[in-house]
This record gives sequence, structure tokens and C-alpha cells, in this order.
Amino acid sequence: MHPLTGDHAQSIGAWGELRLLAAIRHWLGDCAPPNPVGMGDDCAVLDRPAGNLLTVDSVIFGRHFDADVPPAAVGAKLMHRNLSDIAAMGGEPRFALLAGALPAATAHAWVAAMVQGLAAAARQHGVLIVGGDLAQSATDLVLTLTLTGHAARPLLRSGGQPGDHIVVTGQLGGSRAGRHYAFEPRLAEGRALAADPRITVAMDVTDGLATDLPKLLPAGCGAELDLAAVPLADAAVALAAGTGKPAWWHALCDGEDYELLFLVPAAVSITGWLAAWNADPRHAAATCIGRVVAGGRGLVDSRDGLPLRGVGGYEHFS
Amino acid sequence: MHPLTGDHAQSIGAWGELRLLAAIRHWLGDCAPPNPVGMGDDCAVLDRPAGNLLTVDSVIFGRHFDADVPPAAVGAKLMHRNLSDIAAMGGEPRFALLAGALPAATAHAWVAAMVQGLAAAARQHGVLIVGGDLAQSATDLVLTLTLTGHAARPLLRSGGQPGDHIVVTGQLGGSRAGRHYAFEPRLAEGRALAADPRITVAMDVTDGLATDLPKLLPAGCGAELDLAAVPLADAAVALAAGTGKPAWWHALCDGEDYELLFLVPAAVSITGWLAAWNADPRHAAATCIGRVVAGGRGLVDSRDGLPLRGVGGYEHFS
Repeated sequence: MHPLTGDHAQSIGAWGELRLLAAIRHWLGDCAPPNPVGMGDDCAVLDRPAGNLLTVDSVIFGRHFDADVPPAAVGAKLMHRNLSDIAAMGGEPRFALLAGALPAATAHAWVAAMVQGLAAAARQHGVLIVGGDLAQSATDLVLTLTLTGHAARPLLRSGGQPGDHIVVTGQLGGSRAGRHYAFEPRLAEGRALAADPRITVAMDVTDGLATDLPKLLPAGCGAELDLAAVPLADAAVALAAGTGKPAWWHALCDGEDYELLFLVPAAVSITGWLAAWNADPRHAAATCIGRVVAGGRGLVDSRDGLPLRGVGGYEHFS
Repeated sequence: MHPLTGDHAQSIGAWGELRLLAAIRHWLGDCAPPNPVGMGDDCAVLDRPAGNLLTVDSVIFGRHFDADVPPAAVGAKLMHRNLSDIAAMGGEPRFALLAGALPAATAHAWVAAMVQGLAAAARQHGVLIVGGDLAQSATDLVLTLTLTGHAARPLLRSGGQPGDHIVVTGQLGGSRAGRHYAFEPRLAEGRALAADPRITVAMDVTDGLATDLPKLLPAGCGAELDLAAVPLADAAVALAAGTGKPAWWHALCDGEDYELLFLVPAAVSITGWLAAWNADPRHAAATCIGRVVAGGRGLVDSRDGLPLRGVGGYEHFS
């Protein structure tokens, strides 16, 4: 059986990522446990309470980077994407494996700069690169990094409650202008969140807030968003001037922000919590952008209670 | 900078895998510790004496499988390749992550059968699949599996001594006729070796004995091979009838055998050791094929002491 089909309806492109992921979990059956141990969070949690973490992420030429991105930045991006997953669990990174599927025509000078960029990012965050695999592809260049980590108390995507405040670090949107390969993984912020026993729910924003926030909502709940409060990256504002869309739309839909999105319980004074957080110069600023609400209407505008229309994040396999 | 070059001399294809691997270790510098913790063995050993193992391996359409291989066998092969690395360390497998770089035209029925084959192999060996990543490639289909494991006493590639007996499980050669995707990882054999305190050095044969055996030899040592003793797979004998090469040549050079290659110290009676091993019906047969010898002449024919000519294993990036 040939793995590729000429009939679009029979392809994973017709399904999109979410349906494919759900199908894969179904096909895996009982050898794929649900989260927190298994699938469905930013990292797998291999044991509890020990909190050994495992994650994997790839970058592909033409999809996650192009020839305009310096190769050292490609290596750094690969490491930082995985570090962002460890940060989202409130963990510390440890060991990495690099798997490369490379065409024979790959320039060794490009590999050299990429690997040196990866190594610099590893060194900065205390990661040891302990192995890997090299294989020859026909034309696609695929780099895959596996990263282990440890969290004394892993932050999970599950556990949110109606009334929780929705908080995000940094600014969102417009990352395609360059931030997508020049971001800092929010490890210090993840560590600080994990040290606050009131915080239990977090993830990193990779496919856009509009796509990712629903993954943080408990079943049957939606989210009221204060669009005026969404922190806008300068690049989102600049992009909006050209696209004619509101800057908040770019902040919700562009993707590749690598900011932390987390919940602060309703019983906590959000004003006081944010004041304390934002007084610490070691942390990226945090902003409350809405609340979890009972009732499954998805994302609604807090001004009028109406569902947000025309928002969606990055669609894989399109 | 474009990652691909039109100038062959500047490409990784001009270097080949061994030179590229050595260069990558140089570029990684101090963030890539040497084995046993880091690169250079079948798995990374993350801690000692605890012996937590980590490995990663890929299969690529057109390279490791083609449209004639049933998709369920592709999934099983991906799991078995990684299990073979755990077996080579004398370990037990635990958790896996699946990363896929897939063209949008990939048939979901193909993915379904592949994942079900992967799951069946995982279930058979007690592996839990706890996460992964999906990304879109242009045309190459790349599946990458990360596997963790544990070995109370990891078997390493290092530690061989002149005089050690060279032993291999099963039969070698001709795997392209079908065994390359229908082999059994030698987990029980690896476990049995790790339980024998006299055995400390092992690896799995993936690129052909002629390429892999030198990785098991201590610096400055070669190996005397008894070609008449090399256990020949039926497929190697059948292939030799067509190619005109000796069957032992196929056994040394074909690759993808996934048998265990290990050293038995000189002080151990190899006849007695093999008799005990081969009396146990739970183990694939083991055969002594030569000895480690002082003096770095590579692989030599034990009959005349002359270097074997024209042998080489699978060359990546050619």
C-alpha cells in the first residue's frame, strides 16, 4: 500500500490535525494512556510524584523555517520549542536527543551553524545532548528533538474551574515577522508558577490563543475574553495595518507565540496576584485576558457575550 | 542561507555518515558528553547506577520501507528498531513518543494501519506510548520514535579486551528479502546477557557486521574473523546465488540484521558458554565468529591473517 493518496478525501489533509490526533489515540488504544501520564499535555509525565517529563518536537524546512532564517537560529528554535514545552509544565530541562532526516545535498556548513546554534541554546539552559540519529531523506529536511525534564509538581492542562482567571505572559501576535525563531522559552516563568501552590493549570501558546485556549478549558466550559486586554506584540499591530484585521485578531490567531497561558483560581485576587508577579523584574509581564465560564459556547467577547467569529489558529495539514 | 547546496563537495553526501557524526560531536562541544552517559552507544545512559536509557530512531519512506511493506509492518519496524537498541543495552523498554513528519496527501488508512502495527508491537513488549508530535512535510514521510528504558547494568560498546570472543545471535545477511521489517528485537537475549556478570560489551548489528563490529573494538585493536563460522541467513545464501558474491559477504555487509553482537572475555570457556546459552530454548542461537586481537589491522581473515577486502556496510548519505 502506498502511503500517499491522490484522493484528497482519503488524505490526512482532508482531516486536519485535531481529527488525525484523535484518530491516532483511538488506533493506539490501551497502549496510549490518557494524560497526565500520557498524551494530551505539553509533555508526558512519566511518573508521579517524581515528575519526570518527556517531550518531542520537530522543525521542517519550508514549514517552520525558510532560507531567510540563519541556521544557528534554526537550531536555537528547535531547542527553544522543546524548552517551551518543559516550561509549560513548570519543569527543568535535562537531556536531549537530536534526530535528523536530511537530504544528501544538505550543506555541511549549514549543519555546522545549525548544530552550533542548538548547542548554544542547550548550554544556556543546562541541557546535555546525549544522542540522536541521522537518516537520509529525499528532499525534506526534518529536525526532531527529544527533551527530558523534571518538575517537582508538573503544571497540567487539566484541572481548570469556572471562574478561573485566564492569564498570559508577554505579548501575542505577528511572530512571523521574526519572533517565531527569536523567542525566549519561559522557563523562569514556568518555574515561578510551579512554585506558587495556587497555580496548577498551564500550557504554552504555539498554535495561537484561539486554538490553544480551548485545550485549557474544562469540559462544558467556555471562556470570556476581554479583547481590549489582550497584550499585543508590536508586530501584531504592524501586521494589522497591512491586513486590515484588528490587531487582537492577529494576537489570537497568528500562532508561534511560545508564551505561557495559565489559570489563576477565582478565589485569588487577580489584581494582587498580577501586581506581585509584575513587580518581579525576572518575569515577563503577565496579563489577565478573561475568565473561564460555565457553559460550552467556546470563546466569547466579554463586552457582549457573543461568540468570537472568524478566529482560528494555525491549521496543520492544510 | 539555503540548507541545500548544488555543490556536491560542500554537501553531507560528500562526507558520509561517520564523518558527519564526528563533525556534529565536535560542533556540539561540551554540551555533548562522551559515552556511556552520552553519544556513541546504542542508547544514552542518563544516570548510573540507575541505568535510565533513552534512544531515538526513524524510518523514512523510500529508505527504510517502500510501498510493498504493509503499513502495519512499518509501525512494527519503527518500534522494533528502537527496541533493538534497548536490547543491545540489556534493558527493559518503558515509554515511547511518536513524531511524524507527513505530507498532507498521506492516506489516513495508511496511518491507521501503521499506528495499529506500532501499537501491537508496543503492547507485546509492555511499552506505553505517551505522546508525540505531528508536523507537515512537503513530500518525505518520516516517522521518528523516542524510547525510554531501564537497565540495572547497561551493556556498553566500550570495555572490550584483546582475546575476547566475538559472538553474534541469530543469522546474518539478506534482510532486504523481508527480514528487515519482520525481525524480532532480541530483548530476551539482551536481558540474559545483562544477567551474566561476565558479559559487559554488546551492541546491535544494524549497518552490517563489517561496519558495526569495529565500533565494538577497543582502540588499537582489530578482529580476527572465522568466515566459515559466520551464521548465514537463508536469504543471504539465496542472494549470493544471484550476486556471485560469497554468502559470508552478504552476512557481513547487507545490514539491518538487528542481531546482538557481544564479547565474551578470553578467560571464559567459549565452548561451555555457548553450550549453556544454546541449550536455553528461549534464546536465539549464538555463534562465536572470531576474537579481538591487539594491533589495529581492522577485520582480518583468521585463516591467513590478511585484512578482509571489499567489505563495508550500509553507507548513509551516499
